[in-house]
Amino acid sequence: MYKAKAFAAASPTDALAGTLIPRRNAMETDVQIEILFCGVCHSDLHTARDEWHSIMPTTYPCVPGHEIIGRVTNIGAKVDKFKVGDVVGVGCLVDSDHSCPNCQHGFDQFCPDAVFTYNSVDKHGTAPVTYGGYSDSVVVEQNAVLRIPSNLDLAGAAPLLCAGITTYSPLKRNGVGPGKKVGIVGLGGLGHMGVKLAHAMGAHVVVFTTSPSKRDDALKLGADEVVLSTDENQMASHMNSFDMILDCVSAKHDLNSYINLLHRGGNMTLVGVPEKPAELNAFCLIYGNKSLSGSMIGGFAETQEMLDFCGKHSITADVEVIAIQQINEAYERMLKSQVKYRFSIDMASLKNG
Amino acid sequence: MYKAKAFAAASPTDALAGTLIPRRNAMETDVQIEILFCGVCHSDLHTARDEWHSIMPTTYPCVPGHEIIGRVTNIGAKVDKFKVGDVVGVGCLVDSDHSCPNCQHGFDQFCPDAVFTYNSVDKHGTAPVTYGGYSDSVVVEQNAVLRIPSNLDLAGAAPLLCAGITTYSPLKRNGVGPGKKVGIVGLGGLGHMGVKLAHAMGAHVVVFTTSPSKRDDALKLGADEVVLSTDENQMASHMNSFDMILDCVSAKHDLNSYINLLHRGGNMTLVGVPEKPAELNAFCLIYGNKSLSGSMIGGFAETQEMLDFCGKHSITADVEVIAIQQINEAYERMLKSQVKYRFSIDMASLKNG
Repeated sequence: MYKAKAFAAASPTDALAGTLIPRRNAMETDVQIEILFCGVCHSDLHTARDEWHSIMPTTYPCVPGHEIIGRVTNIGAKVDKFKVGDVVGVGCLVDSDHSCPNCQHGFDQFCPDAVFTYNSVDKHGTAPVTYGGYSDSVVVEQNAVLRIPSNLDLAGAAPLLCAGITTYSPLKRNGVGPGKKVGIVGLGGLGHMGVKLAHAMGAHVVVFTTSPSKRDDALKLGADEVVLSTDENQMASHMNSFDMILDCVSAKHDLNSYINLLHRGGNMTLVGVPEKPAELNAFCLIYGNKSLSGSMIGGFAETQEMLDFCGKHSITADVEVIAIQQINEAYERMLKSQVKYRFSIDMASLKNG
Repeated sequence: MYKAKAFAAASPTDALAGTLIPRRNAMETDVQIEILFCGVCHSDLHTARDEWHSIMPTTYPCVPGHEIIGRVTNIGAKVDKFKVGDVVGVGCLVDSDHSCPNCQHGFDQFCPDAVFTYNSVDKHGTAPVTYGGYSDSVVVEQNAVLRIPSNLDLAGAAPLLCAGITTYSPLKRNGVGPGKKVGIVGLGGLGHMGVKLAHAMGAHVVVFTTSPSKRDDALKLGADEVVLSTDENQMASHMNSFDMILDCVSAKHDLNSYINLLHRGGNMTLVGVPEKPAELNAFCLIYGNKSLSGSMIGGFAETQEMLDFCGKHSITADVEVIAIQQINEAYERMLKSQVKYRFSIDMASLKNG
């Protein structure tokens, strides 16, 4: 066991601050990683503030961060997938049992023994719970470590590990590609990745936004059209025309008006979790045999597939790089959607913290 | 044009009563049918009382009935699919354009020019709207007429034309068969068909009901298990275990507690239309990549496929045969779920009416 530098929340109401946390020494199949960048996800804020208490209460201290990019500094004796110096990524999961039906089908994230990157029971007993990427280093079993294509900017690659896979997985599952018309609802951290990925997959991409000011940005990101969702005429002109709509909004909003835009057999997938339930009009789904789905990140193999896809298409997130000392301010700006489109923490800043 | 005997509602508040309605004479590709039995569907009541006004206002007089079984009495010169004397069926649709993308993919029910069996614009101009099966005869284009397997009881076969296809289509689309665990929510006209069909498809069938008294009936219909949905322990014991759940309830009820019973990637399909929107908790769909769908009847080809399947497995609805003069009383009993499980009108009674 060794001590790593980290930024942690000590309680739901405390600002994040520098501290030392225990990390295990690399065991036989472990990879030790110096963290270079860590993306800032809404889940980090929700967990730091214990806002998901009913689903998964937060254990303190809480070190968030599951969009990790780093360099391998040490490997266990039986590590055969990585060598010292490799640039690697760690996403939302650091372990699964690799043997249950979900794992065998590539859905490690739903493994009953899945270990999430932070606030998940630490089965090695190094600490009560796992500690995430707001830290100078992390030790992870090699099967949970991902290769980062060498052409990608590292600060921008970090958010691929959560925002990237969260949007890639449902687009892929729904066969998004040439000849398909795909809607992206909400142009934030998730939505802007959805636009880039759906565009690279070859689809006709339509962004729905409530902010006319986001129009030019959406087009630059790869959208073919932008629809102001508050304009009934614009919405009506797209009735029954979408193959798929990816809904990236986590504030409460009307789902039915989007479901009506799907054509027969179309799918809308939710990746944002509004705090309050949505009101669903069953007839919107019934007339047209439509579907509303949810999707949660992806397994290890699919996350690697997404990273390779991003390497091939030179896709990274648009990020604003910050020092770890700016994290509390970044949370406040994230709540006001004042970031284009994701914060990425330059972890070198922690050496000074 | 000729006059047919029928039972019609003259207004949303009038009881149905005997009347005469205009029917067109059989044209080149038309089949004239003497109606023997007509099932009584909830849609009949909703339409007769104009309860779906916002979706499709009712034009009066209204002759409901879209679960029609009859015998061919006359055919047009170019009819090549049927001959006089054939036992045939007519379901919810009497025409479509047969050329739009929905028709070409077998989804005639979503054709923009689909003509529904009653209360749909009559494109032949015989009457303002089409008149349904509460009548002694009907004239239908041969492509909308279905063959009835000779081994089926005709009174019990009538409800297959709506309740049968409504439940068959989503079960089939979701790959229900051996090795699959399927839930049926609600044991009424739709639900009891869902149980029989899912059982015949080879699935393990679990019926959810709020009435302990329905347990024995559900088992007799083909259920392998019955769960009292008001019992939290019974519900919890089925968490994350269903491949598919078919929700046949049209009263407002909690969807989330059923979605939680689906395993990863599972689907719940709604075929009932509650008057009020349901409250949907997005996290229930997201954790497990689950889907909630809607499904509306089926196209001509799939309806024929369902009838052939029912012929092969000797499946009909459990019906209580009534005279047309009992229809108003039957509506009241249907509202109280006092029928096992569908009324079927013996249309010979209309000769005396």
